[in-house]
Amino acid sequence: MPEHRVYNFSAGPAVLPEPVLKQAQKDLWNIAGSGVGILEHSHRGKVFDKVLAEAEADCREVGNIPANYKVLFLQGGASQQFFMVPMNFLPADKSGAADYFETGEWSAKAIAEAKMFGRINVCGSSKDTNYSYIPPPSQRKYTPGTKYCWIESNSTVYGIAFKGVPEDCAKGVPIVADASSDIFSAPIDVTKYGMIIAGAQKNLGPSGTVVVIARNDLIETGRTDLPTMLQYRTHAKNESRYNTPPTFGIYLMGQTFKWIKSMGGLRAIEKINREKAALLYDHLDAQDFFIPHAQKDSRSIMNITFKCPTAELDEKFCKEAQAAGLDALKGHRTIGGMRASIYNAFPVEGVRALVEFMKKFEMANAGAAAAAR
Amino acid sequence: MPEHRVYNFSAGPAVLPEPVLKQAQKDLWNIAGSGVGILEHSHRGKVFDKVLAEAEADCREVGNIPANYKVLFLQGGASQQFFMVPMNFLPADKSGAADYFETGEWSAKAIAEAKMFGRINVCGSSKDTNYSYIPPPSQRKYTPGTKYCWIESNSTVYGIAFKGVPEDCAKGVPIVADASSDIFSAPIDVTKYGMIIAGAQKNLGPSGTVVVIARNDLIETGRTDLPTMLQYRTHAKNESRYNTPPTFGIYLMGQTFKWIKSMGGLRAIEKINREKAALLYDHLDAQDFFIPHAQKDSRSIMNITFKCPTAELDEKFCKEAQAAGLDALKGHRTIGGMRASIYNAFPVEGVRALVEFMKKFEMANAGAAAAAR
Repeated sequence: MPEHRVYNFSAGPAVLPEPVLKQAQKDLWNIAGSGVGILEHSHRGKVFDKVLAEAEADCREVGNIPANYKVLFLQGGASQQFFMVPMNFLPADKSGAADYFETGEWSAKAIAEAKMFGRINVCGSSKDTNYSYIPPPSQRKYTPGTKYCWIESNSTVYGIAFKGVPEDCAKGVPIVADASSDIFSAPIDVTKYGMIIAGAQKNLGPSGTVVVIARNDLIETGRTDLPTMLQYRTHAKNESRYNTPPTFGIYLMGQTFKWIKSMGGLRAIEKINREKAALLYDHLDAQDFFIPHAQKDSRSIMNITFKCPTAELDEKFCKEAQAAGLDALKGHRTIGGMRASIYNAFPVEGVRALVEFMKKFEMANAGAAAAAR
Repeated sequence: MPEHRVYNFSAGPAVLPEPVLKQAQKDLWNIAGSGVGILEHSHRGKVFDKVLAEAEADCREVGNIPANYKVLFLQGGASQQFFMVPMNFLPADKSGAADYFETGEWSAKAIAEAKMFGRINVCGSSKDTNYSYIPPPSQRKYTPGTKYCWIESNSTVYGIAFKGVPEDCAKGVPIVADASSDIFSAPIDVTKYGMIIAGAQKNLGPSGTVVVIARNDLIETGRTDLPTMLQYRTHAKNESRYNTPPTFGIYLMGQTFKWIKSMGGLRAIEKINREKAALLYDHLDAQDFFIPHAQKDSRSIMNITFKCPTAELDEKFCKEAQAAGLDALKGHRTIGGMRASIYNAFPVEGVRALVEFMKKFEMANAGAAAAAR
């Protein structure tokens, strides 16, 4: 463990790359020899011009984002996107339809907001099992004429994930993905999406910034009778500077993109992420004390959810884990148990430490577990 | 000048208190002995619980904010408030009316957004003089039945400011103030306002957070048929944590509130601000080279605007000032000339240095100025 730091399994805001934090400490006082800290630079000055241009260029390079997609750095988190997407892309008279996959907490919330703007159809849901799987093609029902199809590509809360886009969706229907918790965890084929939305606070940077990668022609279909700030075209035309953007969030994401590049890009990042996830899943599959939540074919490599045989043992586990320097393992209140969020910046040593801790905990508590059965 | 730093006259994002920056450098790595940096803590964890609770409590203490007002930390800057206020407080059928003072760039933009939601009446404007004064009572025309009255309390761009609320406004009409560039620059009687809005990036912290101080009963009159995120009551009920808030922005504002307290509170801050502004205005009044923009009775103590006799001299001034360690003095493109933004954290020594520089510049360029006359 690095000096004075613990292993932070927080689901978000979450652990960031340590070289990025060290650079930020310096730049807070004086960035690029300007005599002014990064927080204090005008968003229209030369220093921030460069920060923004590099953040966008590095984001495009890391994500292999084609020129016919805009990269926007906005505010309000994914939650603001939950209403902005239907508000922009469904007609004002509410006659339009959109398909939504319901595979977790956040897609359920997106559905609730979208209902204000048109006919929202749930084209696939795993609510029946408390979101333990991604609905397979046999369980999907798409709507003819849908304006777009919404997916939550990775469920932060339940630990399940799509493998890419739902390929059986009708050709030409824009896929809109809330990729907040798995953006840039692996290479992504951006051309398969109409729009990718990601709150920064998991894989990219601090909370308060949301990245929107959107196809230019989709942006232009948006309604024009909305407040200026709520039209994507406003931010596209002004390259994320229609109003004062969250400059520090953009700076820090830019540093994170540079860190991803220094690690070898998304292919290398994916390899490490798969290695980390395998360490934990292999152990879960090899024991019978902890109960994993996600079905095997739907497992997330970012958020791994499991329980002890009893809620009392869950509580004991989290408490003792924290004392052992394994922080923020408590699961979301809607599912309980534990959640290990192991985003890009989470070190493999931390996963090994967790597995070792689990082994010891199993041994020490086997009796209590047997009594509960 | 402190090590490696220049005098930063940026209008926003702007200079921050140096003790706050130094604390933030430490807390970026490990805050409160938690082994986790401030950027990386869950917004629902114990460490951030304390950060948020203290930020709110210190904000209330500094601003003497009564219990019947909520303090909300939101996203999207004042620009998002430009449409949220009329969207919430004017009826859905667009039959409602609201009064707006037009005294600068930002009130003009607020007016443009509000027009989408009802009858917007400009109850006073100084557009005729490129916003060089606050319209006096004799020039104001209020609308009977207005739902609220909007003021831009301090014009960042033009350097003019209201002295408190317009007292001649009809009793019971909520005053909504965009106080982005003068919040907490002096004691404020919150009870005279229905709502106070302030983008953080001038007097409070980094860009990406907006503080909204709103009377509880006004919040409750807002429309209920809006997206959840666009209703003030959502954020009031969830104490700024309906979704992931901009945790770092809230943290940094919290540190700034503590710094204000350490300086002796808003009375002491006002004294220093008046001293700084007087240094500059006294010099402007004692010479005839530079031309001040704001009329004397409407002068801002935060943003001080002036010009050289020619645009060429303006350019020369900004360039030479920058070389002398006086940064970001260029005026906004809609007014030209120079703007010295001297927010709370701007040091008095920096104002003295500017005045000295102005004196030298006048002497060196008297000939060019005379030729231009």
